[in-house]
Amino acid sequence: MLKPGERLDDLLSHNLKIIQSNEIFCFSLDAVLLADFATIHRGDKVADLGTGNGVIPLLLTTRQFCPRKIYGVEVQPQVADIARRSVEYNNLEGTIEILNYDLREVSNVLGKGKMDVVVSNPPYTPLKTGQASPFDAKAIARHEILCTLQDVVRAAAELLKFRGRFAIVHRPVRLTEILLLMCEYGIEPKRLRLIYPRPGEKPNVLLLEGIKGGQREIKVEPPFYIYDENGEYSREMQAVYYRGSGKEAGEDG
Amino acid sequence: MLKPGERLDDLLSHNLKIIQSNEIFCFSLDAVLLADFATIHRGDKVADLGTGNGVIPLLLTTRQFCPRKIYGVEVQPQVADIARRSVEYNNLEGTIEILNYDLREVSNVLGKGKMDVVVSNPPYTPLKTGQASPFDAKAIARHEILCTLQDVVRAAAELLKFRGRFAIVHRPVRLTEILLLMCEYGIEPKRLRLIYPRPGEKPNVLLLEGIKGGQREIKVEPPFYIYDENGEYSREMQAVYYRGSGKEAGEDG
Repeated sequence: MLKPGERLDDLLSHNLKIIQSNEIFCFSLDAVLLADFATIHRGDKVADLGTGNGVIPLLLTTRQFCPRKIYGVEVQPQVADIARRSVEYNNLEGTIEILNYDLREVSNVLGKGKMDVVVSNPPYTPLKTGQASPFDAKAIARHEILCTLQDVVRAAAELLKFRGRFAIVHRPVRLTEILLLMCEYGIEPKRLRLIYPRPGEKPNVLLLEGIKGGQREIKVEPPFYIYDENGEYSREMQAVYYRGSGKEAGEDG
Repeated sequence: MLKPGERLDDLLSHNLKIIQSNEIFCFSLDAVLLADFATIHRGDKVADLGTGNGVIPLLLTTRQFCPRKIYGVEVQPQVADIARRSVEYNNLEGTIEILNYDLREVSNVLGKGKMDVVVSNPPYTPLKTGQASPFDAKAIARHEILCTLQDVVRAAAELLKFRGRFAIVHRPVRLTEILLLMCEYGIEPKRLRLIYPRPGEKPNVLLLEGIKGGQREIKVEPPFYIYDENGEYSREMQAVYYRGSGKEAGEDG
């Protein structure tokens, strides 16, 4: 099951395992926050653009209303291979399908206008002119080497049904750019959650959900803190962590 | 000094008085928050679009670095008259000039590209089709009857120097629209402060500052709460309230 350099980790408190590799791909808290944030209705068809080791599809199966089908799109073959083995380990092949495709071309396989939901935790950092190559797997996950923010939003707009939902996690510094791109591609920003490391600090992560063809009106949610003033996980972070573990209240979305 | 229906109020803890009228115009907390938020450098030339009873120009004179000149632009004659008398009462005619003009045409008087700073607390509510007229003074201050958000942003862009700053207060629900309009008129959104009534609640006010010709990069500030968990003014709100009263730390912007 595991290849050299890989390990099998618990996925939060959920009854799931995930394959990770320090050299190739480990999931981040941002992916966990996105899997919690996205609105999911029972029976949805979901695509995750740039799925990495499949962390977001795996976590989406723990939501109160489990999607009918989740496509994890990953351009790097060795990363897609890790994701596929994690899905198999958890016996989730019926729900999750890993597609080793470039997200810019995945509508050729998934069709246009077929998805209820598209989610993405894309590379955050624009590529500097002349940045050194070759790029390793982790650099491709972090920098806009194989896809830009515009590529991701364009792909989401192509894949989504009318009134379908797009949820993205990114850095607050790029809020303007994300809003402009979503509007340009017909996905109206509807819900913004800002993540703050702790009280009194600036946000370092943003979560934004838009609706294809939605009306212009955005709701900003209360601040979401990772840690409270005592350095412990905040109440809202604990709710994310324990979702699906049997310790949660059973509320969703 | 006072006309029927008017009263003379203290302006927060500052050594200033302001004329108010329940029928015509009373200042809101939003104006106070904007006067605190805008970046002001010593000697700036400032225009306040839709100045009402002049509350923002009056408050800007309490900033550590007082502007050289503040133009308060107000389209309604009886409201401009209140503002002018408040300025005279405080002996601030040397710094503040009230212009009874339509903000859509005020660049004819103030010139294009002459202001270091433009601020505005505009009407928040779009006009519904067929909304009943006639409109009274308070309705004009609250609804987009005599100017739209686009009119305000366009006027700000006209008035500002290259690299000049525009600071606006509005409702979070219109964040997308404000960002799009600022980008359309060449004012790059640079700094966003969200105001929350109290911890755990959604923000009900946004403050946004942009720079004409700035680079694309926005900073989101830590949450600003009006009240703390005990129902008392928060530390940050107290700092606004006591600014200029001799009780402040002397820090600015």
